[in-house]
Amino acid sequence: MAAQKTVFIGIIGVGGVGKCFLSQLKGVTERLAKNPRNPALAVVFMSRSKTNIYSADYAPLSLDTSAETVAASKQDVLSTAKLIEYLAAAPGKAVVVDNTSAQDVADQYPEFLAKGVSVVTPNKKAFSGSYALWEAIFGAAAKSGAKVYHESSVGAGLPVISTVKDLVETGDEVTKIEGVFSGTMSFLFNSFAPTEGEGGKWAAEVKKAKELGYTEPDPRDDLNGLDVARKLTILARLVGLKIESPTSFPVQSLIPKELESCSSGDEFMQRLPEFDSQMEEVKLAAQAQGKVVRFVGSIDVAKGEVKVGLEMFDKSHPIAALKGSDNIISFYTKRYSASPLIVQGSGAGGEVTAMGVVGDLLKVVAQL
Amino acid sequence: MAAQKTVFIGIIGVGGVGKCFLSQLKGVTERLAKNPRNPALAVVFMSRSKTNIYSADYAPLSLDTSAETVAASKQDVLSTAKLIEYLAAAPGKAVVVDNTSAQDVADQYPEFLAKGVSVVTPNKKAFSGSYALWEAIFGAAAKSGAKVYHESSVGAGLPVISTVKDLVETGDEVTKIEGVFSGTMSFLFNSFAPTEGEGGKWAAEVKKAKELGYTEPDPRDDLNGLDVARKLTILARLVGLKIESPTSFPVQSLIPKELESCSSGDEFMQRLPEFDSQMEEVKLAAQAQGKVVRFVGSIDVAKGEVKVGLEMFDKSHPIAALKGSDNIISFYTKRYSASPLIVQGSGAGGEVTAMGVVGDLLKVVAQL
Repeated sequence: MAAQKTVFIGIIGVGGVGKCFLSQLKGVTERLAKNPRNPALAVVFMSRSKTNIYSADYAPLSLDTSAETVAASKQDVLSTAKLIEYLAAAPGKAVVVDNTSAQDVADQYPEFLAKGVSVVTPNKKAFSGSYALWEAIFGAAAKSGAKVYHESSVGAGLPVISTVKDLVETGDEVTKIEGVFSGTMSFLFNSFAPTEGEGGKWAAEVKKAKELGYTEPDPRDDLNGLDVARKLTILARLVGLKIESPTSFPVQSLIPKELESCSSGDEFMQRLPEFDSQMEEVKLAAQAQGKVVRFVGSIDVAKGEVKVGLEMFDKSHPIAALKGSDNIISFYTKRYSASPLIVQGSGAGGEVTAMGVVGDLLKVVAQL
Repeated sequence: MAAQKTVFIGIIGVGGVGKCFLSQLKGVTERLAKNPRNPALAVVFMSRSKTNIYSADYAPLSLDTSAETVAASKQDVLSTAKLIEYLAAAPGKAVVVDNTSAQDVADQYPEFLAKGVSVVTPNKKAFSGSYALWEAIFGAAAKSGAKVYHESSVGAGLPVISTVKDLVETGDEVTKIEGVFSGTMSFLFNSFAPTEGEGGKWAAEVKKAKELGYTEPDPRDDLNGLDVARKLTILARLVGLKIESPTSFPVQSLIPKELESCSSGDEFMQRLPEFDSQMEEVKLAAQAQGKVVRFVGSIDVAKGEVKVGLEMFDKSHPIAALKGSDNIISFYTKRYSASPLIVQGSGAGGEVTAMGVVGDLLKVVAQL
């Protein structure tokens, strides 16, 4: 029997999602340790935004290291270039786990991959930025054999990316993808325009969602539709469409033109009720047809069309019947022609996002 | 760069699902061949029930080889023991793909795995037979490092097994699994007790389903519930329950006691209308509560209870709202606590079953 293999792991971001990730990883390493055939996972680098801890001799750091300990570290801070060098020089295969949503980290993925360091991340930025970056990432991976997995970039831990990849790689022809890709938008419209009952006023629902923590600190970051557009960009590229950027197709913003110039989220929230009548009209127009309005994204593969915005659905449609803050993603394909393959469930939150990252890490490690 | 790796593949069963599998595999090998970093897939053995073709020197067979050519082969027939020996002696890692639903092939998986031959299959029998066989299979795999993947054993190509494994391996706690696991049962109840309208008489719906090819040649093989019980056995074991066999928990058969002794499927179909009133009572009892009846399977993990049979659901419940012959599987977990993670879509048919097999094969090959 071969000696036990060790895979070296660097973690960028150990607060928020990273905290959940570390805690799940601890359980995973304990399970893997039970069979000497499994690889050992050695976490050798952890960082927060301005600090890091790393092991100069690649001895594993404790998985009980807290985010606070990392934040208080006085160790020299490795630049991304130095981190790449450090991981590439590890005495075994290496993986970087990027738990941030930072564009500047995402921009470095091609460098990690070119040096043979695999990438696992929930960060949408790398895959929904410029098409040039997308090509650089997957080009570098194809050349070096390093892996890049990003399940949690769409629908958090829901099996979305893996399902698209399985469909495409086994030769199915995806014709259309449609769904609700934002927990915030899901919650807002399920409350604003429920399938039964009247629902609340728009601004009041946004306020409630903000108070419950379902929106970004500034709700405009959800209402502009960019988050959904990023997810659609990723899926569209995975089915072969060359989408230049998340702003290169129609994205309907729910920020009224007049409020685009608000200087703060608070001012925006204060003035939003002035526009309740606009959204009420949308709701009533749908009701008049026995339908409800939802904020969806869709990809028509044959036409090469991607769009994000409001659409009306029959009340019995799975998209209309969604509950809470759930996501739903429907894949229409040649094989799933009579009815779509549907994946549904919570698509946001630390634990389910971390689950997608840990699941990816396990799949990558199994291939190294 | 390392020399291109070749993985050797033996295929048991190239008719039915196997035919779809071969055709999908052809596309996959062509795609893989585009990057020399990818392994080459060499199919070196193909069999039908009584004949086989194999390559004595492990040179790849043509993927255009038809099921008819295999059926007409005069080559010496390898016993399963000989096949194991042959694949284990290949000049590289080997995988056996079992496209049959045969118990005797399934019984040999531990031998394949012990000799380092990975197993990929849609065959339910191995994983839903005796618990001793389950332990022998996964024990042999853990010891040799060979892989065993069986996505299509539940829900065909739908991401069901992979989702359960991801949940469990990343440390989530599955509390309950519930769903419609049979395309036949789905079609029957969606027609017999639709959420809108009256639906047909029971025997007439069974007749229609049979004529449309939605049932086994003898519909009793669907109506006895064993197929669903097998799938539940697999899922229950994956979440850690020691289920002795698919008959060790309550399974409601929809074959009336009086018709259990019918000598043929035809006699059964002829006499089934005599029992329409029994099923009509069930339908009306649900209607009286504003509900519909469905044939479901469920696993209560904490209680260790598995059951299969008729249950009533509110018309707005996702299980009630299912269409056509779709499957739906809901995972209730600690992380997905507010609402379940749901996977839905066609769960039967050659192409989607083969897709699950090909997807598994790709995952196994990537790890070898």
